[in-house]
Amino acid sequence: MKRVLVVMGSASDAEALKPCARQLEQFRIPYEVRVASAHRTPEAAARLAEEARADGVGVIIAAAGKAAHLAGVIAGHTTLPVIGIPMKSSTLDGLDSLLSTVQMPSGVPVATVAIDGAQNAAILAAQILSLGDAELEAKLDEFKKSLAAKTTEADAKIEL
Amino acid sequence: MKRVLVVMGSASDAEALKPCARQLEQFRIPYEVRVASAHRTPEAAARLAEEARADGVGVIIAAAGKAAHLAGVIAGHTTLPVIGIPMKSSTLDGLDSLLSTVQMPSGVPVATVAIDGAQNAAILAAQILSLGDAELEAKLDEFKKSLAAKTTEADAKIEL
Amino acid sequence: MKRVLVVMGSASDAEALKPCARQLEQFRIPYEVRVASAHRTPEAAARLAEEARADGVGVIIAAAGKAAHLAGVIAGHTTLPVIGIPMKSSTLDGLDSLLSTVQMPSGVPVATVAIDGAQNAAILAAQILSLGDAELEAKLDEFKKSLAAKTTEADAKIEL
Amino acid sequence: MKRVLVVMGSASDAEALKPCARQLEQFRIPYEVRVASAHRTPEAAARLAEEARADGVGVIIAAAGKAAHLAGVIAGHTTLPVIGIPMKSSTLDGLDSLLSTVQMPSGVPVATVAIDGAQNAAILAAQILSLGDAELEAKLDEFKKSLAAKTTEADAKIEL
Amino acid sequence: MKRVLVVMGSASDAEALKPCARQLEQFRIPYEVRVASAHRTPEAAARLAEEARADGVGVIIAAAGKAAHLAGVIAGHTTLPVIGIPMKSSTLDGLDSLLSTVQMPSGVPVATVAIDGAQNAAILAAQILSLGDAELEAKLDEFKKSLAAKTTEADAKIEL
Amino acid sequence: MKRVLVVMGSASDAEALKPCARQLEQFRIPYEVRVASAHRTPEAAARLAEEARADGVGVIIAAAGKAAHLAGVIAGHTTLPVIGIPMKSSTLDGLDSLLSTVQMPSGVPVATVAIDGAQNAAILAAQILSLGDAELEAKLDEFKKSLAAKTTEADAKIEL
Amino acid sequence: MKRVLVVMGSASDAEALKPCARQLEQFRIPYEVRVASAHRTPEAAARLAEEARADGVGVIIAAAGKAAHLAGVIAGHTTLPVIGIPMKSSTLDGLDSLLSTVQMPSGVPVATVAIDGAQNAAILAAQILSLGDAELEAKLDEFKKSLAAKTTEADAKIEL
Amino acid sequence: MKRVLVVMGSASDAEALKPCARQLEQFRIPYEVRVASAHRTPEAAARLAEEARADGVGVIIAAAGKAAHLAGVIAGHTTLPVIGIPMKSSTLDGLDSLLSTVQMPSGVPVATVAIDGAQNAAILAAQILSLGDAELEAKLDEFKKSLAAKTTEADAKIEL
Repeated sequence: MKRVLVVMGSASDAEALKPCARQLEQFRIPYEVRVASAHRTPEAAARLAEEARADGVGVIIAAAGKAAHLAGVIAGHTTLPVIGIPMKSSTLDGLDSLLSTVQMPSGVPVATVAIDGAQNAAILAAQILSLGDAELEAKLDEFKKSLAAKTTEADAKIEL
Repeated sequence: MKRVLVVMGSASDAEALKPCARQLEQFRIPYEVRVASAHRTPEAAARLAEEARADGVGVIIAAAGKAAHLAGVIAGHTTLPVIGIPMKSSTLDGLDSLLSTVQMPSGVPVATVAIDGAQNAAILAAQILSLGDAELEAKLDEFKKSLAAKTTEADAKIEL
Repeated sequence: MKRVLVVMGSASDAEALKPCARQLEQFRIPYEVRVASAHRTPEAAARLAEEARADGVGVIIAAAGKAAHLAGVIAGHTTLPVIGIPMKSSTLDGLDSLLSTVQMPSGVPVATVAIDGAQNAAILAAQILSLGDAELEAKLDEFKKSLAAKTTEADAKIEL
Repeated sequence: MKRVLVVMGSASDAEALKPCARQLEQFRIPYEVRVASAHRTPEAAARLAEEARADGVGVIIAAAGKAAHLAGVIAGHTTLPVIGIPMKSSTLDGLDSLLSTVQMPSGVPVATVAIDGAQNAAILAAQILSLGDAELEAKLDEFKKSLAAKTTEADAKIEL
Repeated sequence: MKRVLVVMGSASDAEALKPCARQLEQFRIPYEVRVASAHRTPEAAARLAEEARADGVGVIIAAAGKAAHLAGVIAGHTTLPVIGIPMKSSTLDGLDSLLSTVQMPSGVPVATVAIDGAQNAAILAAQILSLGDAELEAKLDEFKKSLAAKTTEADAKIEL
Repeated sequence: MKRVLVVMGSASDAEALKPCARQLEQFRIPYEVRVASAHRTPEAAARLAEEARADGVGVIIAAAGKAAHLAGVIAGHTTLPVIGIPMKSSTLDGLDSLLSTVQMPSGVPVATVAIDGAQNAAILAAQILSLGDAELEAKLDEFKKSLAAKTTEADAKIEL
Repeated sequence: MKRVLVVMGSASDAEALKPCARQLEQFRIPYEVRVASAHRTPEAAARLAEEARADGVGVIIAAAGKAAHLAGVIAGHTTLPVIGIPMKSSTLDGLDSLLSTVQMPSGVPVATVAIDGAQNAAILAAQILSLGDAELEAKLDEFKKSLAAKTTEADAKIEL
Repeated sequence: MKRVLVVMGSASDAEALKPCARQLEQFRIPYEVRVASAHRTPEAAARLAEEARADGVGVIIAAAGKAAHLAGVIAGHTTLPVIGIPMKSSTLDGLDSLLSTVQMPSGVPVATVAIDGAQNAAILAAQILSLGDAELEAKLDEFKKSLAAKTTEADAKIEL
């Protein structure tokens, strides 16, 4: 049973989303990946959002670029937490995607991570799912320790 | 029969949209005003868009602020031209609305006017409708002349 | 008889405008391409705008970069709908072109599409022309379906 | 037992956070409000974060302005999901707070909502907590319906 | 005989241009003030530019807001130096006007001063005209000394 | 003997600089306040900078708005640490002052604090002077504790 | 005898300034090129500015990047018109240079051209010098015609 | 005994920090380089800050990118002057790092240098340490002269 639904607005976002998939796998969180567009297949996007909770999904991750409406549109069709990843595209360095994703009006939040923050979206999803899942909580603790360990190791070796 | 459908994301945008209504009335273009939200009533927004052409609508004007998804979402559900008005809200001076409205991905354009450009949205709608309407074309010519006349008159009186 | 007039401010914009031409051709919309500058050949730009409607043109597409005045200047000389494409140039990532194109003062709108949004300008032109043209409306429906189909197809194959 | 911990960087943020408190109360989610600063009381901020999960907290909401480090610092001390609210302060219209909150490096996400998005932070917290809580899920459904109803009602009455 | 032509895009800019007029008067530089719009009265704007040199004008000052095309359009119709004043309008704090005025393409420069920099436009005009005018050069020297004197005086009195 | 030299580009900055003066007084750091402009009295500014070290000054604080060159110009005439305060002026919300102050080329740094960060400039000056001054170091410790205490006190009382 | 003084803040700007030199040569305007820094050799920069008018210079062109103070500092030491070229450097795409150059306080204008607008700086200098120089005026007319001719030629050949 | 502590948020910043190390070595200022993260190893970062003064450190230099909290967090744990270097990362050109570093709230300043301003951070550290160190003051004088000499030399050779 999938726990996370990862939706991207265009298949061209796939490469940039791989760190999200790898991180979910590292946490052994089952996920499904879909392509749906707020503008090209709005019904599909709506349906994915509406059916997600009943399908056992706990968190939806939505990634889109430019006037990035996907996360917001999905959030309009579910009461699940929706994580938005603003994708950097060919102009404006992702500022358009960021503002389109994060500046949601009152009533319909999107949990926005950094521009191209695919790995962090997976970690945030894991944190959310860890509330009722002691095993996942332990994996997150371990992950946090490994992050610290890598920094500590780098600290031991650093030279300029 | 209405020719223009004006949709706003929130009733709080009404005041700023009055110049749009007044301008459409001056051109004697029948219009309908609706409130529909890309996030709070997405089905209503979709339905408005899908039924518009059959209802005789030629142009849809959509106004929204912040992460302004309304115009894009409407454009996803119709082949009519959609004019987007980015509304200035309490932060970022409308830059978020502008980028969320104009930076649409390939395939689904939104004809974006200036931030809070309600009057210009009405004029653009009239220009579009004038293609098959000699009377409206004449009104636009007259309007253009009156704009010029006002500037010429101001020119005659200006002092610093 | 041409239905769309595509004007660029400089021949160096030609490459980035090809998706506009290809899209117009796909819709079988006759168009003419011209180079005219708001600053270097302002009379030519004005004349193109003034004569366009009488020549059967229904929509003018104007593309320019930096302090992109071309679309606005053309809009000052016609009551036809004018679509502006802000072109990304060597600095500021197209923000200057976007603001120069979209932030038009009251009375003279420019229907602005995304930075480097050449294909969308063509689609918007087709949407405008489709109001009196059932065949073009059908092509737009078909196009919209093909967009959806491509996304649905991508959805079926996606893997991360 | 509190389920949400609301931390603000300065007591001067209290007024702008009231919609967050009201919304949590409407959902009957027990919460605690604290003041802790990433720069003035970093140990207190760290301790709040470290002890939160054991105290039964499921989500931490952190609000700060300017170089808004609070949410990120708290996220460094917990594996709970941390929601960041960028507060608008006297200059730059909240852009500094937004970028300081959302652009977190890989490994330590902050779920960022809109500038001054206090109510949305509460809703997002409720969405997260609803995963293991059918009653809260029902309240969110009801809330979503009431949002839609208000828009539908506004739609019925709108005039320009 | 006028030496400076001051053109504003709209009579609503008059108040903000008064420091320009007062400064030209202080330098005893004869000037004429006109209203002409790049979009509403483009022929008038072009004619003003084309006839200016023959009329004895040495410098044109053009002030406009939003997508501020006036200075650029005037520069397209003359070889006189054109000074552009980007006017702050109701959104974006003048950034749109600034970029629309200063980012001119190669071949047609506009000498841009600060947003709302009306007084500085007059001083720059005086500097340009002073090249062949020893009396004006002397006035500029005097003005520069008076600026320094005011600062020196303020320095003598300052307290915090 | 003064230890800190506070220079402002214009007497109109005085009000916004009072927190700097009050903070220096609280630390009992003797200071002198001057008005000097990088553009109106450049020699005075240069002289202040050149003579400062010999006069016993340890830190120069320079505050200016818009194209804020004062701190950079002063830094060009001394090897003392120069703290720059970017002042918010009537447009662009201080972004121009910030970039003009902080983006110094290699070789000539300016220690930049936040826009309108007058109090922080004083604290930074105190930190710099504390290196050879145990009494001042103690005062800074005390100040840091009082900051923490105020936050702790606010924490004890906070309600939403 | 030189008529234009071109000053750059760093020799690394030389490549980007070549179009300025070539354009001045095309107009047969004698010029001198210098390197002087507002921060590294402020006295040299001041001296160049102070002596320029007596040396027969009519216009100073100053080019600098990042916190670009050179043009402003030079303008502080002369009553000649000073043209500022904001140079794009490795971050922020020239926005810092632009704001540092154009946002001059009242009393000391800099005639700012586009980011990296080296050729336009030369043309603006020629326009200024043409006021007392019929031969140069004729060359500018010719140049303007050649610009138009190139655009007209491109117009005749354009294809997409 | 080290006088400067250089802390970077990630070992990936090392390359960009080499100019800082080389400059400190040229001034013969002993320094230590460490890796510590405000989010991954916050205790290590705090400890480094807290122990620095007792270890003889006079200045801490902290470099981080994106939501750059390192310098601010370190400043929260010491009364030493803290110099922040905002590092340019893969999006937004360093604007996020700059605002996250410089816009510190009242009470806890960070002395911010330019984006990627590693060399300037070293020079600023030297200026601070020179207050009680005549030898270092002499080296800074020499350095300032060598900067001027290089510019003067470039001036002698420049050609376009």
